[in-house]
Amino acid sequence: METTTSATTQLISKDQLLTHWLGHRKLTRKVLEAFPEKELFEFIIGGMRPFAKIIKELLAMAAPTAKGLATGTWETLDEEKVELTTKNELLNSWDESTQKIEKYWKDISMDEFQRPIVAFGQFEGTGYSTLFYIIDNEIHHRGQGFVYLRALGLTPPNFWEQ
Amino acid sequence: METTTSATTQLISKDQLLTHWLGHRKLTRKVLEAFPEKELFEFIIGGMRPFAKIIKELLAMAAPTAKGLATGTWETLDEEKVELTTKNELLNSWDESTQKIEKYWKDISMDEFQRPIVAFGQFEGTGYSTLFYIIDNEIHHRGQGFVYLRALGLTPPNFWEQ
Repeated sequence: METTTSATTQLISKDQLLTHWLGHRKLTRKVLEAFPEKELFEFIIGGMRPFAKIIKELLAMAAPTAKGLATGTWETLDEEKVELTTKNELLNSWDESTQKIEKYWKDISMDEFQRPIVAFGQFEGTGYSTLFYIIDNEIHHRGQGFVYLRALGLTPPNFWEQ
Repeated sequence: METTTSATTQLISKDQLLTHWLGHRKLTRKVLEAFPEKELFEFIIGGMRPFAKIIKELLAMAAPTAKGLATGTWETLDEEKVELTTKNELLNSWDESTQKIEKYWKDISMDEFQRPIVAFGQFEGTGYSTLFYIIDNEIHHRGQGFVYLRALGLTPPNFWEQ
């Protein structure tokens, strides 16, 4: 358990990292919401994936990472495990993932962030490096979504609006 | 000063965060390098900025943030303070910024990350929230650079290659 003393000496505390992650998830949700239904599944630039496909990748990584860190049990990475064919289904799945993250977060011990792990049975790292990778990957692909929206003549949400 | 004991209880240590940041900077440098000279300054999608302009924003934020956290002195945010008109000048400025970050990093105290600050004299936050914002903003805009490269028919570096 964290004590108040150790929490204040943290560069970033566990609570702060969750708030940071959930803030990014709120912004990504807004980007998902901003896409028109058809373009969400079809619009691409330069041979890249449609934003719906990106969201499926993020869904396959986020809650399973929280679960893996909390329980030590990692699912295999499967972006097509659940069939999601509408914006509404993606939004609902996004919200379910957020709930799972909040649930599992409580069970992640502080030691887990520095422990060597093999995420999804294939990616070697530590708890923190895995989680940072997941968040960074979301930011990276959401940036791609911003360009798609602009190319479609739509205004994305503000980056700092979380 | 950090002791070995407190370092092991950190979610992420100061050294680890620097390594994380510098890894992202290496990847962004590769994206910058991948742009053809002309397109770096001229190519845009959907009314967004050319990638050179984005790099200037990142340059204006990165080393001054390290300096601000280390010294408590914040410059005003000025993306055009130095005239940078070629890819080579941008690359050199990028490398100088990296050196400054490494230099100032040593002088950032652990307490600084949790201290309330006003970055660049205008953005309220804490040390860690400011630094995370700077890194996230780099990832976000680099994601935009990836799309520009793909739209130009060029292959960006791998996201996980840092």
